[in-house]
Amino acid sequence: MAARGEDKDKYEQGLDKNPANYLALTPISFLDTTTQAFPDRTAVIHGETRFTYTELSARCRRLASALQGRGIGVGDTVALMAPNVPASLECHYGVPMIGAVLNPINFRLDADAVAFILDHGEARVLIVDKEFSGVAKAALEKVEERPLVIDIDDPLEPVGELIGETTYEDFIAGGDPEFNWRRPDDEWEAFSLSYTSGTTGDPKGVVFHHRGLYLNTFGMIVEWHMPAHPVYLWTLPMFHAMGWCFPWAVTVLGGTHVMLRRTEPKATFAAIAEHGVDYMCAAPVVLNMIVNSKAEERAPFDHLVHVMTAGSSPPAPVIIGMEEMGFEVLHTYGLTEVFGPMFVCAWQDEWKALSREEQARMKSLQGVLYSTFEETVVANPPDYGPVPSDGETMGEVLTRGNPILKGYLKNPEGTKKVFEGGWFHTGDLGVRHPNGYIELKDRSKDVIISGGENISTIEVENVLYRYPAVLEAAIVAMPHEKWQETPCAFVTLKDGKTATERDIIDFCRDNLAHFKCPTKVVFGPLPKTATGKIQKFQLREQVKGM
Amino acid sequence: MAARGEDKDKYEQGLDKNPANYLALTPISFLDTTTQAFPDRTAVIHGETRFTYTELSARCRRLASALQGRGIGVGDTVALMAPNVPASLECHYGVPMIGAVLNPINFRLDADAVAFILDHGEARVLIVDKEFSGVAKAALEKVEERPLVIDIDDPLEPVGELIGETTYEDFIAGGDPEFNWRRPDDEWEAFSLSYTSGTTGDPKGVVFHHRGLYLNTFGMIVEWHMPAHPVYLWTLPMFHAMGWCFPWAVTVLGGTHVMLRRTEPKATFAAIAEHGVDYMCAAPVVLNMIVNSKAEERAPFDHLVHVMTAGSSPPAPVIIGMEEMGFEVLHTYGLTEVFGPMFVCAWQDEWKALSREEQARMKSLQGVLYSTFEETVVANPPDYGPVPSDGETMGEVLTRGNPILKGYLKNPEGTKKVFEGGWFHTGDLGVRHPNGYIELKDRSKDVIISGGENISTIEVENVLYRYPAVLEAAIVAMPHEKWQETPCAFVTLKDGKTATERDIIDFCRDNLAHFKCPTKVVFGPLPKTATGKIQKFQLREQVKGM
Repeated sequence: MAARGEDKDKYEQGLDKNPANYLALTPISFLDTTTQAFPDRTAVIHGETRFTYTELSARCRRLASALQGRGIGVGDTVALMAPNVPASLECHYGVPMIGAVLNPINFRLDADAVAFILDHGEARVLIVDKEFSGVAKAALEKVEERPLVIDIDDPLEPVGELIGETTYEDFIAGGDPEFNWRRPDDEWEAFSLSYTSGTTGDPKGVVFHHRGLYLNTFGMIVEWHMPAHPVYLWTLPMFHAMGWCFPWAVTVLGGTHVMLRRTEPKATFAAIAEHGVDYMCAAPVVLNMIVNSKAEERAPFDHLVHVMTAGSSPPAPVIIGMEEMGFEVLHTYGLTEVFGPMFVCAWQDEWKALSREEQARMKSLQGVLYSTFEETVVANPPDYGPVPSDGETMGEVLTRGNPILKGYLKNPEGTKKVFEGGWFHTGDLGVRHPNGYIELKDRSKDVIISGGENISTIEVENVLYRYPAVLEAAIVAMPHEKWQETPCAFVTLKDGKTATERDIIDFCRDNLAHFKCPTKVVFGPLPKTATGKIQKFQLREQVKGM
Repeated sequence: MAARGEDKDKYEQGLDKNPANYLALTPISFLDTTTQAFPDRTAVIHGETRFTYTELSARCRRLASALQGRGIGVGDTVALMAPNVPASLECHYGVPMIGAVLNPINFRLDADAVAFILDHGEARVLIVDKEFSGVAKAALEKVEERPLVIDIDDPLEPVGELIGETTYEDFIAGGDPEFNWRRPDDEWEAFSLSYTSGTTGDPKGVVFHHRGLYLNTFGMIVEWHMPAHPVYLWTLPMFHAMGWCFPWAVTVLGGTHVMLRRTEPKATFAAIAEHGVDYMCAAPVVLNMIVNSKAEERAPFDHLVHVMTAGSSPPAPVIIGMEEMGFEVLHTYGLTEVFGPMFVCAWQDEWKALSREEQARMKSLQGVLYSTFEETVVANPPDYGPVPSDGETMGEVLTRGNPILKGYLKNPEGTKKVFEGGWFHTGDLGVRHPNGYIELKDRSKDVIISGGENISTIEVENVLYRYPAVLEAAIVAMPHEKWQETPCAFVTLKDGKTATERDIIDFCRDNLAHFKCPTKVVFGPLPKTATGKIQKFQLREQVKGM
């Protein structure tokens, strides 16, 4: 017998992985465990339609089987251009069930962008809701090779041309409801392809893997402390960063997916009141829309509705307004590249002693790392040492963890750049507070440099949002002879409210260092992406022409 | 350009794993994310001692660093023989932080068994609480090579000899509180070694891996729907199946670990009342002890305490008794080999319509698969096709999933057998009900075959527990000339209650098929394992001598 400590590999010998104790992680399997536990619970509500988990599972298997019947399989791309309808949810299971890769497309893109995505992703199938068949048809005229086109002929969408070879319902009717799905050979296999909004140049195709989506599904549940059987309202477009993993998180918990074709205040309130919705996700712009909704759009409800928000910091008046209406806001921060949120503004008990405004300010911080992620620093090249936790020194937010993209499809340069130095680069600039919370100050490309001083556009916007007449605000850099750049404000006013450029600049000067104040204010509606993000690149174009 | 569908590997090219997007899963990392988010929250309560997460983290790092300083490293075994004290929890982080393997030893074993384990596991270190130094000292006299011995000199344990080279506190005082822990090269690396209680022959060493413990940590949180900051009472011995992953689950949630050296009613009630404990785990025998506690042992509390139980089915009167006292019982089922529970008796809304007794009966089912597991069947060799879901047909419970042991240490035969046919074999016989819930009927080695008919000892025991005077009951096979085997009952009566053999047999005949009724009843205390399981092999020995 070897002396102790010499037999180092005793824990490796005869203890190999086998088919019983090592299976590729995939979020597909959550549908099976929940269907076995809660076969008759309502999985999906869509208008008058209800599907139990048994029915949802059968529909996903039919879709997988029907796709396989058309020769679709491992590594093939299936594109989806649809709002939050049952078929969209089913694609999040049925497509990966055969090893194919789901490519949800932003349905607000124009035909050129859609054609680019279909070609770049080499889509072999396009499943398209008839609401968007006009754009899809135009895009299909431009693509190099036409995919199989399947129409979602949703009875809740009365108009729209059918442009495909078959309808979704006819297509899946031919599939096997007991189809045995294929577990990936390796959990690193591609699950999906999501194109970033592409504020400059061609969009980049973010490739996700089964492992990361599986893990962040638990991340969402654990960080939001979700209970059994949530009633989840699909206010967040499912195409956005895989619906932040809620196609799976709601399912693991045996919850109900309440579908919503359009995120409007009236439909949102109606779903909360009628179905007892208690969980939903939304960009701050949607929260703003809810807070500023008209009395006749609202419906009373008497339970707490948990709202997870991400995308930009929710302004304090919006958080306070939401809470006064019965919503509990949790602020998170992430990117398409990390399957949605990866930081959470975790509540600290000592904040109870703060005023409502101070609480809202704390809640607007980006927060601390999800437990499903591993490491983060706020740091700067070339050595990426952490900046001091002083709430002042800016650096780029860098992370490491498993729920992070494989890379960009057919874009080795972009992939190399985003992983430079062994970190995932968010491209967001922030600070770290003494309590460890990070706070974003800007996208690295948005920051304004005025007379050599950095100006955080977010900081200026937060002041603008505190001005009572302001509904929405955005700051971009405007070229300036003396200072190189100065802030230019774009502002939308609330219905019935008025303000002059002078009023707004004066308010800023009362609340900010003068060099940070806008030198110009433009009034009017703001251009937005499908997910409610203000499109600053369009505002920059506008500034150039001024 | 290739035709679409030919370029199958576009999702593999240039999308390799890298240090930013693929990190070995390990539950160690939960300590970091929580310490960063909640540095000043109370992590540990032990008597008058309190540790914040910052302090707990520093103590774990000191332990890791001090062990490394003594030459301990990857693949070395560190044995632990201690009750639920802070050092035990710290070993669950500090030992794997250097790639060493933690071997928690059942502290109720005798010196021969402890010596066997120290030798078989090749322990290089033994960390031992002075309560158990007597047995440890005797064991150390028998081992082939004496490990480094470290005494836990807990002020809450006033007696006991110190037998080691140093005390735990002195040892870690020499360690670096900022030690950088080592992430495993591969998440399949061994994390720990747990010896099964070994009802026959030598105990088997169950080797766990980082991946499985990480995943089942989320499994526990998700299936129990645990909220933020639970106050968790350590009624379950930490050495039992890695404390069912609660060393990590409580930590992920920023909860408080309330230590408990001995699971006694008085200390349990005191902790609930004083610290607001709201989560705890316990074998049914502990629930029984709580329900049957004396008035002077109890303390009033006015909040709900969630109790997860596993090990055997809690009898209906115990569940009802617990609920009347303010506990909510969740019944789960698992084995050491799967890191604790893998089935959960998930609550179904329609059970609300049932009587309290019927609800308790439903709650005693083993239930449905955890969402962190992948597949299960109740089946029989040689083909392992599933038995019908009729609640009648018995088969062995088989599973597949990631939180399953690597295998048994230095035991290729045992490892091969437990994974036969590509399934993990529980060795438990059960049925599947029409609603998909499994119900255990027996350990495969416990089942009684009487006149060719199978008798489930659990079924007979459940009837015995319904007899008002019965505190505890166990059934084993007794040799019989005509029927080969018949059931023999071993019964403990409640304080102050009486019953005759005839009373009990008559009660069984009123409630069971006659061939299932015991033909003999033995009164007296029952032999138990450290985790409260009745040791049937001892009763079988006793029967042989009758």
